[in-house]
Amino acid sequence: MRVASRDGRPLKETPVTDETPRAMNGAESLVRTLVEGGVEVCFTNPGTSEMHFVAALDRVEGMRCVLFLFEGGATGAADGYARMADKPASTLLHLGPGLANGLANLHNAKKARTPVVNIVGEHATYHREYNAPLTSDIEGLAHPMSSWVRTGMSATEIGSDGAAAIAAARTAPGQVATLILPANTAWDPGTGPEPVPPIPERARASDDAIAAAVRALQSGEPVLLHLGDRAVRGEGRVIADRIARKTGARLMAMTSNARIDRGAGTVPIERLPYPIDQGIAALKDFRHIVLIGATPPVGFFAYPGKPSLLAPEGSTTITLATPEEDQIDALERLAEAVAAPPAEPVAVGPRPKLPTSGPLDQDTIGQVLGALIPEGAVICDESITTGRNFFALTRDAAPHTWLQLSGGSIGLGIPMATGAAVACPDRKVINLQADGSGLYTVQALWTQAREHLDVVTLVWSNRSYAILRAELTNVGALNPGPKALGMLSLDDPAVDWVSLARGFGVAGRRVETLPDFIEAFQHALANPGPHLIEVAL
Amino acid sequence: MRVASRDGRPLKETPVTDETPRAMNGAESLVRTLVEGGVEVCFTNPGTSEMHFVAALDRVEGMRCVLFLFEGGATGAADGYARMADKPASTLLHLGPGLANGLANLHNAKKARTPVVNIVGEHATYHREYNAPLTSDIEGLAHPMSSWVRTGMSATEIGSDGAAAIAAARTAPGQVATLILPANTAWDPGTGPEPVPPIPERARASDDAIAAAVRALQSGEPVLLHLGDRAVRGEGRVIADRIARKTGARLMAMTSNARIDRGAGTVPIERLPYPIDQGIAALKDFRHIVLIGATPPVGFFAYPGKPSLLAPEGSTTITLATPEEDQIDALERLAEAVAAPPAEPVAVGPRPKLPTSGPLDQDTIGQVLGALIPEGAVICDESITTGRNFFALTRDAAPHTWLQLSGGSIGLGIPMATGAAVACPDRKVINLQADGSGLYTVQALWTQAREHLDVVTLVWSNRSYAILRAELTNVGALNPGPKALGMLSLDDPAVDWVSLARGFGVAGRRVETLPDFIEAFQHALANPGPHLIEVAL
Repeated sequence: MRVASRDGRPLKETPVTDETPRAMNGAESLVRTLVEGGVEVCFTNPGTSEMHFVAALDRVEGMRCVLFLFEGGATGAADGYARMADKPASTLLHLGPGLANGLANLHNAKKARTPVVNIVGEHATYHREYNAPLTSDIEGLAHPMSSWVRTGMSATEIGSDGAAAIAAARTAPGQVATLILPANTAWDPGTGPEPVPPIPERARASDDAIAAAVRALQSGEPVLLHLGDRAVRGEGRVIADRIARKTGARLMAMTSNARIDRGAGTVPIERLPYPIDQGIAALKDFRHIVLIGATPPVGFFAYPGKPSLLAPEGSTTITLATPEEDQIDALERLAEAVAAPPAEPVAVGPRPKLPTSGPLDQDTIGQVLGALIPEGAVICDESITTGRNFFALTRDAAPHTWLQLSGGSIGLGIPMATGAAVACPDRKVINLQADGSGLYTVQALWTQAREHLDVVTLVWSNRSYAILRAELTNVGALNPGPKALGMLSLDDPAVDWVSLARGFGVAGRRVETLPDFIEAFQHALANPGPHLIEVAL
Repeated sequence: MRVASRDGRPLKETPVTDETPRAMNGAESLVRTLVEGGVEVCFTNPGTSEMHFVAALDRVEGMRCVLFLFEGGATGAADGYARMADKPASTLLHLGPGLANGLANLHNAKKARTPVVNIVGEHATYHREYNAPLTSDIEGLAHPMSSWVRTGMSATEIGSDGAAAIAAARTAPGQVATLILPANTAWDPGTGPEPVPPIPERARASDDAIAAAVRALQSGEPVLLHLGDRAVRGEGRVIADRIARKTGARLMAMTSNARIDRGAGTVPIERLPYPIDQGIAALKDFRHIVLIGATPPVGFFAYPGKPSLLAPEGSTTITLATPEEDQIDALERLAEAVAAPPAEPVAVGPRPKLPTSGPLDQDTIGQVLGALIPEGAVICDESITTGRNFFALTRDAAPHTWLQLSGGSIGLGIPMATGAAVACPDRKVINLQADGSGLYTVQALWTQAREHLDVVTLVWSNRSYAILRAELTNVGALNPGPKALGMLSLDDPAVDWVSLARGFGVAGRRVETLPDFIEAFQHALANPGPHLIEVAL
């Protein structure tokens, strides 16, 4: 490779190898900072202003770059990756519109408290005043879905900006940190990689919080230990279970959870139901709700005549540990305070049996999942209405990890599965995908094909926004007419998922019977690489 | 259908139906305000919080509701619709993430100065404080891509809020007006439709501006009349041509233009080239640049060692009329001041001939377009690199309208064509579509099928982000390695557009030779309804 010096003449000493001495520009300083800071994957859809960052990828070892056809795929993948890798990936997006296209899944990442180093290209600092067509208020766009935003000012500082972004992303429980990268901070001479500053430890829960929880647990009244974040993932459930066995408290996860490691041999846990009436009913008998990494139970939406807060009137809500605090420590201190017994192995029951006959419906599909989910699988659940009982029916499946849509912004499933598969090349990823939701970011299938990722996408093809049919009634919009019902229907024309998958390079198959579903799913599980099964409902 | 009068009582003449008398809620007040204010189409992807608006559509005559699988389709369609209808459509989007998904094409609409009434659902006002999963800073998201933002406070005011949004959208030259609609402002009792407040007229150009332009035109030095907005569309070009014939000035459109009505018999006009070096070269001989509805020529991006402003050093730039001002009036006054001759009919030359042999490449495709574009066609041009010479080669085509990507946010073509077809059911819409760009919002094909829209999508299938190959060099990222080049390639796997089209219900065909292209294009032109032709390049 021929390398030019800064003044444009060829360097005299240029060796014949492909690594040549030369000034490191801002982009390379940033990429090296990322790699040395543990950010090893970049999910991207780049443009002109990001070309120096892209070019730097060939000069720096250790950064995998994964291309998407649409930015929502990249940001959703960054979410899925970090949930599994427990460290952030970066994105690389093209100015304001590129960021905008990624915001919906950054919203999900923010609500899941996923660490993301979100890098957005920008015009050169001196070019912004001219209001070129792609100029927009990138910081303004970034703030609503980011916990940290900074615009680089110079190539000599962009390395330390990147290091600060990593630290912000990794600050517990995890944040979306957006670094805006003006083109000249990438192409001007940089100063090399910068170390990541110290990352603050999680704060410990207060003694008062522990004492309040103890009082509730010893009150003799019904107590719910409501678990989120790290408290629900796996280790925390073991401690919570010890407390429950001692005190009679019940455990319940939030409606949506970033990650739960579960299945046979793990402490089982139910989730707060999504439908407003079921959610209220699930909580109605508790007098004390102890939040451990969870936020207070609230209605997903407001509904006329129904409360926003789901806890029963007169109950107390106690925050033992916020999502930001050290929930494991808080649980251990609480367990000690109530003299909880040691952990006991969870009895492993028989694996759910594969159904051999019956219709292809939500129940039999859930049973199939329970029977066939392979050990170590990562389940990405954007099933919406179709999957309401899948969680319960897979409780005794082989040990696996369950990732959910956390911010309610549909279109996460396919991207999240893509990112999870990048993080976990040795684990099977199974994407439980509602059809309406999947269509938002269906382009991410192409990335699965391009990267040969081991993902099975199961599409629940009911050809409608089924959830909205119920919500029409819930919000009091009764007697909907044909126009309204038309807005909830995806059957004219019917979307042909097998053709869409083929279009993006993924093998697809449509099944309409239970035996066909079982056969197709078993085939996909046995053969690595991306597969899509359109399941007719 | 039961209809209520403004005071909420049922009208006596209302036929008996299954709907009981009831007060008009906020949603219906808003929908009636929109319809009475001339907003007759709603492009939407709704969710729970928008269900009352959706339900109201069946109680109000005159609002066509067009569903999209992804919000970027809805906002891009609103742009295309308004460019052709010369009045705004509304959108209906689902909270912050739904808005976010629509922002990239709202950016294009903003830069095109297209009027859009952008309606975004929101949690009920009293529910926002509980930070439910879908809660976000919607106003914060809206501001960067909107010129007017308001959050409804009550159902009794939502009608007047909607009326204000229409007035804001229609304020010249056209604005994106975002009205945020909390769920309770939709379901609480409303007060009926509200009239649209007076819309300010365009300001007239100052006499000083006219005088400055006259001095430039009479200086004997080379003058460019740089046309944008209304000055470039059609009528303005006739006046500008009169001025040019009198003074020797040249006419040139901006690089990107919201709408140009052109073809045989109209005043021809070139555009400022996109590539930075060609743009600088095109302007280098002018001593005066007179802006009429155009903004100063600037580089689309910054490039190292190249200027941001493209006008030659020492030249003067004179703003005759801003995009906000009355450009036709300004042109007429200028024509009078220089004693321009009356308009002359533009000679109609022979139609371009259909090429009969040769490779299938940019030149022959351009010739085919020149020969086959039918009279009255609406061309939606997101051709990017492939289409650099299409504009010149269609100069003498049958009279047609040319719409361009105005904000540089790719993914507009398919949605814009969809909206243009809704606006102009009697005109053939032809979408010239780069493949990389088309993949951002490919889901809008489904809406074309659902609505039986008369759109021919021609996909330039070069299977790469071809523009970025040139831009790598332009920004000085020389000698790109395999990782960098991989980020510009869409050929592994190759996207199969015919399968994608089929998946969304649109008839598709791939062509690899010139005769096949001609035959397929002629077939698509002769048969109404959506067609997609993947053109192998």
